[in-house]
Amino acid sequence: MDDYIAYYNGEWIPYNEVRIHPQDRGFTLGDVVFDVERTFNGKSFRMRQHIDRLYRSLKYVRIDPGITADSMLDLSEEAISRNEHLRGPVGDYRINQWVTRGIGGAGNIGLGDGSPAVCINVLPLDFTRYARAYENGQHGVISKTRSYPPEALDAKIKHHSRMNFNLAALEANDLDPGAWALLLDMEGNLSEGTGYNYFLVKDGVIRTSTDNAILQGVSRGMVFDLAHQLDIPVVEENLQPYDLYTADEAFFASTSYCVLPMTVVDKRPVGDGIPGPITNQLLAAWSESVGLDIVDQAIKHAK
Amino acid sequence: MDDYIAYYNGEWIPYNEVRIHPQDRGFTLGDVVFDVERTFNGKSFRMRQHIDRLYRSLKYVRIDPGITADSMLDLSEEAISRNEHLRGPVGDYRINQWVTRGIGGAGNIGLGDGSPAVCINVLPLDFTRYARAYENGQHGVISKTRSYPPEALDAKIKHHSRMNFNLAALEANDLDPGAWALLLDMEGNLSEGTGYNYFLVKDGVIRTSTDNAILQGVSRGMVFDLAHQLDIPVVEENLQPYDLYTADEAFFASTSYCVLPMTVVDKRPVGDGIPGPITNQLLAAWSESVGLDIVDQAIKHAK
Amino acid sequence: MDDYIAYYNGEWIPYNEVRIHPQDRGFTLGDVVFDVERTFNGKSFRMRQHIDRLYRSLKYVRIDPGITADSMLDLSEEAISRNEHLRGPVGDYRINQWVTRGIGGAGNIGLGDGSPAVCINVLPLDFTRYARAYENGQHGVISKTRSYPPEALDAKIKHHSRMNFNLAALEANDLDPGAWALLLDMEGNLSEGTGYNYFLVKDGVIRTSTDNAILQGVSRGMVFDLAHQLDIPVVEENLQPYDLYTADEAFFASTSYCVLPMTVVDKRPVGDGIPGPITNQLLAAWSESVGLDIVDQAIKHAK
Amino acid sequence: MDDYIAYYNGEWIPYNEVRIHPQDRGFTLGDVVFDVERTFNGKSFRMRQHIDRLYRSLKYVRIDPGITADSMLDLSEEAISRNEHLRGPVGDYRINQWVTRGIGGAGNIGLGDGSPAVCINVLPLDFTRYARAYENGQHGVISKTRSYPPEALDAKIKHHSRMNFNLAALEANDLDPGAWALLLDMEGNLSEGTGYNYFLVKDGVIRTSTDNAILQGVSRGMVFDLAHQLDIPVVEENLQPYDLYTADEAFFASTSYCVLPMTVVDKRPVGDGIPGPITNQLLAAWSESVGLDIVDQAIKHAK
Amino acid sequence: MDDYIAYYNGEWIPYNEVRIHPQDRGFTLGDVVFDVERTFNGKSFRMRQHIDRLYRSLKYVRIDPGITADSMLDLSEEAISRNEHLRGPVGDYRINQWVTRGIGGAGNIGLGDGSPAVCINVLPLDFTRYARAYENGQHGVISKTRSYPPEALDAKIKHHSRMNFNLAALEANDLDPGAWALLLDMEGNLSEGTGYNYFLVKDGVIRTSTDNAILQGVSRGMVFDLAHQLDIPVVEENLQPYDLYTADEAFFASTSYCVLPMTVVDKRPVGDGIPGPITNQLLAAWSESVGLDIVDQAIKHAK
Amino acid sequence: MDDYIAYYNGEWIPYNEVRIHPQDRGFTLGDVVFDVERTFNGKSFRMRQHIDRLYRSLKYVRIDPGITADSMLDLSEEAISRNEHLRGPVGDYRINQWVTRGIGGAGNIGLGDGSPAVCINVLPLDFTRYARAYENGQHGVISKTRSYPPEALDAKIKHHSRMNFNLAALEANDLDPGAWALLLDMEGNLSEGTGYNYFLVKDGVIRTSTDNAILQGVSRGMVFDLAHQLDIPVVEENLQPYDLYTADEAFFASTSYCVLPMTVVDKRPVGDGIPGPITNQLLAAWSESVGLDIVDQAIKHAK
Repeated sequence: MDDYIAYYNGEWIPYNEVRIHPQDRGFTLGDVVFDVERTFNGKSFRMRQHIDRLYRSLKYVRIDPGITADSMLDLSEEAISRNEHLRGPVGDYRINQWVTRGIGGAGNIGLGDGSPAVCINVLPLDFTRYARAYENGQHGVISKTRSYPPEALDAKIKHHSRMNFNLAALEANDLDPGAWALLLDMEGNLSEGTGYNYFLVKDGVIRTSTDNAILQGVSRGMVFDLAHQLDIPVVEENLQPYDLYTADEAFFASTSYCVLPMTVVDKRPVGDGIPGPITNQLLAAWSESVGLDIVDQAIKHAK
Repeated sequence: MDDYIAYYNGEWIPYNEVRIHPQDRGFTLGDVVFDVERTFNGKSFRMRQHIDRLYRSLKYVRIDPGITADSMLDLSEEAISRNEHLRGPVGDYRINQWVTRGIGGAGNIGLGDGSPAVCINVLPLDFTRYARAYENGQHGVISKTRSYPPEALDAKIKHHSRMNFNLAALEANDLDPGAWALLLDMEGNLSEGTGYNYFLVKDGVIRTSTDNAILQGVSRGMVFDLAHQLDIPVVEENLQPYDLYTADEAFFASTSYCVLPMTVVDKRPVGDGIPGPITNQLLAAWSESVGLDIVDQAIKHAK
Repeated sequence: MDDYIAYYNGEWIPYNEVRIHPQDRGFTLGDVVFDVERTFNGKSFRMRQHIDRLYRSLKYVRIDPGITADSMLDLSEEAISRNEHLRGPVGDYRINQWVTRGIGGAGNIGLGDGSPAVCINVLPLDFTRYARAYENGQHGVISKTRSYPPEALDAKIKHHSRMNFNLAALEANDLDPGAWALLLDMEGNLSEGTGYNYFLVKDGVIRTSTDNAILQGVSRGMVFDLAHQLDIPVVEENLQPYDLYTADEAFFASTSYCVLPMTVVDKRPVGDGIPGPITNQLLAAWSESVGLDIVDQAIKHAK
Repeated sequence: MDDYIAYYNGEWIPYNEVRIHPQDRGFTLGDVVFDVERTFNGKSFRMRQHIDRLYRSLKYVRIDPGITADSMLDLSEEAISRNEHLRGPVGDYRINQWVTRGIGGAGNIGLGDGSPAVCINVLPLDFTRYARAYENGQHGVISKTRSYPPEALDAKIKHHSRMNFNLAALEANDLDPGAWALLLDMEGNLSEGTGYNYFLVKDGVIRTSTDNAILQGVSRGMVFDLAHQLDIPVVEENLQPYDLYTADEAFFASTSYCVLPMTVVDKRPVGDGIPGPITNQLLAAWSESVGLDIVDQAIKHAK
Repeated sequence: MDDYIAYYNGEWIPYNEVRIHPQDRGFTLGDVVFDVERTFNGKSFRMRQHIDRLYRSLKYVRIDPGITADSMLDLSEEAISRNEHLRGPVGDYRINQWVTRGIGGAGNIGLGDGSPAVCINVLPLDFTRYARAYENGQHGVISKTRSYPPEALDAKIKHHSRMNFNLAALEANDLDPGAWALLLDMEGNLSEGTGYNYFLVKDGVIRTSTDNAILQGVSRGMVFDLAHQLDIPVVEENLQPYDLYTADEAFFASTSYCVLPMTVVDKRPVGDGIPGPITNQLLAAWSESVGLDIVDQAIKHAK
Repeated sequence: MDDYIAYYNGEWIPYNEVRIHPQDRGFTLGDVVFDVERTFNGKSFRMRQHIDRLYRSLKYVRIDPGITADSMLDLSEEAISRNEHLRGPVGDYRINQWVTRGIGGAGNIGLGDGSPAVCINVLPLDFTRYARAYENGQHGVISKTRSYPPEALDAKIKHHSRMNFNLAALEANDLDPGAWALLLDMEGNLSEGTGYNYFLVKDGVIRTSTDNAILQGVSRGMVFDLAHQLDIPVVEENLQPYDLYTADEAFFASTSYCVLPMTVVDKRPVGDGIPGPITNQLLAAWSESVGLDIVDQAIKHAK
């Protein structure tokens, strides 16, 4: 990681030198919002939508990053190009923007000193984490830990105050080591994962939660677009664990892996327990639309 | 702040050199627990209770800090004594321990690399923030933003995933600049503030929320002990804004200021709008028990 | 009713001439708070507590009646004495204070013109409605219609926005003509009736709801005081219909009838289906404390 | 107002003589339902839909007004024509029907004497209240006070038990004087205002709450019809404050002003902080459909 | 009933000899799932859909019946044909499959001995119970007893743990003898009955609850199909009692009677209080699709 | 089991001949209530309290067993004495009473034929299931499946509609084979197990849930009595998983094993992970009060 160049508070510095002040509210209070994108063959994907979502997060939590959305986008593209020479061996990049509210007082009270920390950096994608799951399927576990209700903290904000995600991930691991957490909202409906959305397929229809208690996933939007193009109906609605346990297939969607089959949930096979045909259709269509075989790339770069 | 010495991952270093790695889960996921104490005349107060609570937080979130509670306590006392020579001009110290889960993967998934970051540091108390409020009263505002429900994240854990506290603090400021936020739980009961508990007095009885959706405050426990000693009844129960709006007096309790009168809530006077007699009794008893006039000290050191 | 004198907006006028303007917010928006007391042998009972509660209601809804609580109390006593000469044939009085926010605009928006309407009047008690129930028992019906949650409208405010009480009363009548409604709160706990509190007795202990979703009844307070005097334990807690269905006895408490036995709930007998011994003890103690046989008086004056 | 003629309990009398009996349950218990319409150039608008909704309210609360819906409609039209000679200087009328359950007993118990009070009257529209907001935008504030849940009192009934509306309006004013309240339902979803519905526009789509916890607004229905005619998609769904804070535009809809731009919410600009293009399109289409420039009329008649 | 042959744990025996062991978890813990179909002129109807639902129930509760869905279907058809010679006088059959988890330990703990009891039997339809209601309409009563929330027990599982159905049925009978219970979900939305779904019609649209808290009724699916064929729009959404009280018509749907008009709810007429035109259209279309006059058959066979 | 004699519908028959009719509502609808007691040295324990609770269950669900509580108690004692000659080798008995509503119609509708099935039987205690856990501790797992809310089915009724208990038990086993389920109520508070209550000890205080969503356990009452006798404070309150995870000790209580230490919850040690001193004190006191070493007996008879 030594050589990556990152934008940090107006300067381009080695990513390795980026550090957070222990009194930055981003650390002491999780008072930070962020977004994440990836490249395909070095080209950013739906960057504008991500930046727009970042600015919705900023607007909601009322942090002024000091730069416009257009600048944020340009700087993000610049971060990619400044590091392009290092991309070869790692395949593609994950781009990350985060903005904290800046240094706070010693206590939890007070509203920062008006000097947000802004960082934009690129890093290699973590293919190793999921490459094998394209074929074998990734396991999911419905966690006891729930999503925050919107009245406490709206899931449509992309922030770092994610202790509940940590707890959910630990629980998933308790039951099925290596499995990923599937959270429910406070009413017991399927909501989202710890950095990904999840979907099920029943009788040829893709079903997923409404955006009441989940992030408005950009990959989720891409799934909708591809499904539309493939003439697969999509329904957003309140779903319960029953729907997932009795689904024909299921999958995760996220920026890095795009779409990943979920073949086991709570140790029970989803459908036949193998990646489903609609999941694979979506993956193929996504690969085609970005001109790169998503699965092959992941497998090739995974360790 | 240049000269304070802090414990950081097994070493004693200048506090100014403590920095958080941008991939530490404590930053990226608010995956960090902490506790805070203060000194009176340089002597720590109820440190054991704070450390016990810290270890309950650690147990719940399953971070192993690598050192025992006894060592954590000894190191905390050592942090005080190592910095004792700097205490004179600032009066007293705030001690802070935090433990993160360590470096995470690039994504939100995964459970850290097993190398938690542990920090223990002292800093001057922020007298300026509240000294005048002992006499004038501090204002409170009931925020729309709610406490997390225990099913999503239990308030009895003391952690950094506090975006909802930030939002509540902003709202309080919107309505009454300088006022502090008073959160409700998901059922609409009075819960806690953004780093403090709050109490009301009605007909000679101190009333405060149960610990269903609040931190088990050490200062709250001290209030109970002092009230017991002063023969003032205390009731823990579900309370609603009605109870606060129609109270005779109200106050905040926290590690730094101990007890602070709340004289206005949602722009309405609490009782007569001046610090109440029971609030003042508690403050006086606290001062006596620690051999230091809490109010005088704060006023003397405030800027 | 022709001859009763009432206080209305600063004047003493025949009660029969009191009328509400069709644009008074008290009518168009239920924007009015009130309280009710009774006399025993022409002497008011716990008037101060009622007036204090009225002023808590006023403080909560932020209506300024233009007169102090002391004046309100004096005027209320004056209303009694001004009508004392008419009391003989009717036995005792019900005193009623109400305060509206005054004339509003044509729409629901806007906050009144700052000229509240204030009325204080006395009327005969409605003995006929309940006199026979001291011996026969009054029936209760748990209504489907629930109490308002505190987040929408706190039951501790005594106001006229009571459409839900009307609906509950209709439902009670549907199932058991003449029965009175027993509401549950939003969580399904026993709450209150449409102008009265209700209690149950099990194994010698009086049990009743907490004041989370009920009016802080003055008669309820008197029941607590009498029980204390009689050495009968009282518990305030969350109770469910199960507790009422399986109780040994049950009763209502309200300003006019004081305590009234509930012998049937949802068409099932409570205990043996006759007024219970603790209910009768409370009634006797109340009669003694006010120097008047409450039951005899009611029966004598009922038509 | 001296000369307006109103229908009151079977007679036509000067509106100024209409008064409510202090024991009418419409006053003592908010036991009254109502509806409101307006004229355009003296012609009623969607009167039938309003009367149908009034009769649904009556059916739900089980008040028999003693006249059929057809008579109610005819009498309402007659109220307009009887007052037509006074319309010139004020432009247009607001028509109001209300029906109470009639005189009740002294207590809250009992179900009335079966003699409902029925009133139909016309009054000038309150152009002054909102005329300037067509251009400047009206501010909104999300209140802490919530809508009643349907289990306590269904928002689809149009009644006078609106103390929660009063409290919400006061809160809105606390934060932003002159702003109008935006309520949430008990689950934290956007619901309705204190006599109006509200909508947001995002990416060219009009979004508004389902009718689970709101009045089935006739103006809301007109907005849907106009949007359909203008080919603007409309979605009814659960929405959260996030959606409003990050909307492109927002507006209110109500009988009197039809559509009114909301440009600020909780002191933050909606979109660019000026009336949005779709809002203006709807207003223009509405004006066209009723043959009257709604905005011009309001400005001309506002004081 | 003496002569009906039933499949029981691998054998064909007289139905009269089927008995449940008192320690079968199906009895001691309601640990049993089931499904029910009917014949038309001796031919099964949508058997495959029912068996699929049964196997979804089995999958959810994790009982392995020891036979495949295909075998279950074949055995069910065999149960019909083995009893065909008895069908003449009773018209048509009700087929019932149930599967328990088998014998449990003495306590509630433990998970059975792995030997499920499986039964498939046919019995005459109970025409007498509902035949007259096709013309007169069946009454409904909204019960206080609620549907289980999915977090406790998902209504999409078809099981025998139905004490809440019993309580709801008793309540319905309390208010209106012979009426059927209409349950609400925990949020107060219309959900389902005690073995049937229910629907309302308003302005030509069929409206019914989503499947969040109801069984995924096969007859409900047939209603959707027939409505589609008849060009009647259908909406699945959250509905409240208001919607039912103010509907134009309403009906029940279940396996045995197919569609049955609901003419009274909570003692109030639905619409005009007679079976509605869309209800009748659905019945006629259903009859046509199965080649049998459903109403005539019921009336002919009812006693 | 061949020789046990049971009371069944008025007769004494071999237990082995007791069978349930497949149309008994007790089977088809879980429409059955029950209770369970045990003997110590052949003598029943708190039988009267159990029978009282059984009759509260019967009263709530409105089943008339046809015999009085006194007869039920006498018959239960008779069941013990009739089987006393078989007790020697098995140590002690578990007595079980159950009452169904009787045969129902073919559908779920209708209210039974008024002929309840009543059974009273004795069986050996299942020492093997728990004997080793007195020393090793029993594991617990907090299940995702929740307790029914009182509005759907009150946990204070002891009935057979326990599919949710089955699901919770399966989940417990998934995570930690052999562990017992610990349910939460719908608000996320600790409630009860699948046939037992559970308790925690913190700082010398026994803490357990209120009876809002749990059975009013007779063993729970015995724990309270013993704690009182031993001067150990007991608190009934809302508790969350945090309280259990951070407790010093924990235990189960039920009729058969009386008190059983819980040493692991969700795979984490409770306190030191061994049976706690207060747990052992309670066990010893219980043994003393019944004149039998509960632990020794269990170990002796366990296989």
